[in-house]
Amino acid sequence: MNLILLSGGSGKRLWPLSNEIRSKQFIKIFRNEDGVYESMLQRVYRQIRKVDADASVTIATSKSQVSAIHNQLGEEAGICVEPCRRDTFPAIALVTAYLTDVCGVSPEETAVVCPVDPYVGEEYFEALKELAKQAQKGEANLVLMGIEPAYPSEKYGYIIPEDAEDISGVSEFKEKPSQNAAKEYISRGALWNGGVFACKLKYVQEAAHKRIDFTDYYDLYKKYGTLEKISFDYAVVEKEKKIQVVRFKGQWKDLGTWNTLTEAMEESSVGNAILDKKCRNVHIINELDMPVLAMGMQDVVISASPDGILVSDKEQSSYIKPYVETMEQKVMFAEKSWGSFRVIDVEKGSLTIKVTLKAGHSMNYHSHMHRDEVWTVISGTGKTIVDGMQQNVKTGDVIAMSAGCRHTVIAESELKLIEVQLGEDISVHDKQKFELEL
Amino acid sequence: MNLILLSGGSGKRLWPLSNEIRSKQFIKIFRNEDGVYESMLQRVYRQIRKVDADASVTIATSKSQVSAIHNQLGEEAGICVEPCRRDTFPAIALVTAYLTDVCGVSPEETAVVCPVDPYVGEEYFEALKELAKQAQKGEANLVLMGIEPAYPSEKYGYIIPEDAEDISGVSEFKEKPSQNAAKEYISRGALWNGGVFACKLKYVQEAAHKRIDFTDYYDLYKKYGTLEKISFDYAVVEKEKKIQVVRFKGQWKDLGTWNTLTEAMEESSVGNAILDKKCRNVHIINELDMPVLAMGMQDVVISASPDGILVSDKEQSSYIKPYVETMEQKVMFAEKSWGSFRVIDVEKGSLTIKVTLKAGHSMNYHSHMHRDEVWTVISGTGKTIVDGMQQNVKTGDVIAMSAGCRHTVIAESELKLIEVQLGEDISVHDKQKFELEL
Repeated sequence: MNLILLSGGSGKRLWPLSNEIRSKQFIKIFRNEDGVYESMLQRVYRQIRKVDADASVTIATSKSQVSAIHNQLGEEAGICVEPCRRDTFPAIALVTAYLTDVCGVSPEETAVVCPVDPYVGEEYFEALKELAKQAQKGEANLVLMGIEPAYPSEKYGYIIPEDAEDISGVSEFKEKPSQNAAKEYISRGALWNGGVFACKLKYVQEAAHKRIDFTDYYDLYKKYGTLEKISFDYAVVEKEKKIQVVRFKGQWKDLGTWNTLTEAMEESSVGNAILDKKCRNVHIINELDMPVLAMGMQDVVISASPDGILVSDKEQSSYIKPYVETMEQKVMFAEKSWGSFRVIDVEKGSLTIKVTLKAGHSMNYHSHMHRDEVWTVISGTGKTIVDGMQQNVKTGDVIAMSAGCRHTVIAESELKLIEVQLGEDISVHDKQKFELEL
Repeated sequence: MNLILLSGGSGKRLWPLSNEIRSKQFIKIFRNEDGVYESMLQRVYRQIRKVDADASVTIATSKSQVSAIHNQLGEEAGICVEPCRRDTFPAIALVTAYLTDVCGVSPEETAVVCPVDPYVGEEYFEALKELAKQAQKGEANLVLMGIEPAYPSEKYGYIIPEDAEDISGVSEFKEKPSQNAAKEYISRGALWNGGVFACKLKYVQEAAHKRIDFTDYYDLYKKYGTLEKISFDYAVVEKEKKIQVVRFKGQWKDLGTWNTLTEAMEESSVGNAILDKKCRNVHIINELDMPVLAMGMQDVVISASPDGILVSDKEQSSYIKPYVETMEQKVMFAEKSWGSFRVIDVEKGSLTIKVTLKAGHSMNYHSHMHRDEVWTVISGTGKTIVDGMQQNVKTGDVIAMSAGCRHTVIAESELKLIEVQLGEDISVHDKQKFELEL
């Protein structure tokens, strides 16, 4: 099975655990079978591997998520990087071109496209395999998954099938409705549209060439910034006549708000947390080192990360977005392909961060125009390169770098260091990358 | 007026803003007339100065609070340091001996003793002056303040006066009663015992010599650790026959729990905090750099410091003590006479802290057996002394110190530095102090 996972989202709704560069799919909140916390991305990837060990998985995502994906899945995950954010139609066109033109997949092959962040059981991935088989048959150009509604939600689009069979034609599509309209659709057998479908790659290719003037993947990539923002549903799905929907009856949850996310948590807390006996329906997700103590709370989610602290009534938490938008969105932590960093102190004229490099990894060889930096290695061993000069480093070593000097550190074992940045104009954009001069 | 302020308290009830070394009286939560936040200690000290500019104020406290008092009041505040914690009888005996034997105050003079942390208006300090005058007259050996009860509290002791006059004899004392008993006392004209009294110094001297075998202040200080833990109320007040109580009708609040403390706050939040429109009777005190967002909360206090985060129903918050006692009480921040420090990162084998020195101040000249340290100056100018060698330092300078080496830093302007401690056994107790070799 060719599986395309769409990984998007800006993550404002799950502040402070998601931010500009960490979307909800990266939050480690679920326990896997070994009791280790994993993110939605890791969970989905693990489930796919279990159901179909040979599945070819490609994640379509933006530049800002690439590091986090590599950090969580390792280097083997196939990634098709969107140079900037458009909508799902350009994204699916690009990843299709990537599969055919870069990976050499035949346009006759089928692909299944689905979002990276549904909270589902393994039967969902079995259903994806069935979807791919159905698309391969060629009875229809497009085979959708229709999810049996759990309640008359106002948040999803609805697919109204022609009949009540497991596989059926599609009579019409309905936008996010009012609750009453949703009830009426459901009485007519309507299914949720979870954005999951299967088709042959050539079908997307043709649709793409109809709307966009391009030769191949590389050309499309170059033009990507100029493309119209339009959803695949709107551009393709809703116009297709040769279309089928396959009924899915298993567990499917969209964990897009704190209310729905905490429903899926197996324990009442993750991280350093204490709940008193009067707490009822309280969930705490604490990514800070310090303890959180909750006393006498009901129906509340408490979430803490270096970005901030949320204390919210669960129902009320779905209205979080405008509040987060008013905040200064300084990224205080991030997972990178080489490890992670966390801002531990902010002052006028200085910024102190803790950097953790995974064994065998290194950061880019880079320089800054407007700041000096001081590294103090707090654990591990490795090698620094400063203006071309190599030096072995270990715990306790200090490296001072002036503005303009090129530098990197290569971790032998896992290596942690405290980096003090000094300058009047400290900015993440003040960074020039270079090829290593070894 | 000789005023003795008793500054005690371990501060578990106001966790995470109070801790082992920062009691509730040091929390900056009230605005003064200039809009600047001040602590209960600073507020009381300012009020005293306003009502009686010439008052001689001595703060009786334990070693652990001396730095914080100097930090908040400057060097001029008179402090009598208890070498260890006993109860109020030994403490009052010690401070009395301090006043007569060290400061040379005549035993014929009167002193007023009161706790450092009542939340009161200026009329309270006017009343203290009246209390002193009444004691000076010599009609009674001991003149108590009796606070007119606001409600039948179970938390205070009661004084039952002989009559309803402003100044009256005392008929009896009652321990913390049940609510019904409190109601009955109040119907008999009972007053709260706020632990405030005035008497001549020689009266305490005599009481002290009756119970304790000592010659003078220095002898008492030496024996302090061996003294019986007993309260002044129990040892002296409740046994005295020649005793009067002066009625106090003004504002008096004991801000000992989050519930009572937040009642006295003029604003709903201190620090970086956002409350949505659905919040009702919510108070946020946030000492962290990151924002706290509260949504849809009612009757809740949220408090955040480097020690931890509390989210509590206000009523429920009075039951906090046992929960705090189960926590590992690592001190993550402190105010010292020379400035302050804050732990910003904890790892196995390292601890990173931010140190802020006030202009003109320096830390002790000291060394550590089991850890190396690296300082990176992030702002200000000053001078370091390392094994006797002086060096001028400024922003960006790095000083590396091995275990065993003696070091200090003297701030010229306000000076901030990041200190990375490195070693397997990092402990606050691993510290040897030395005289400066200049």
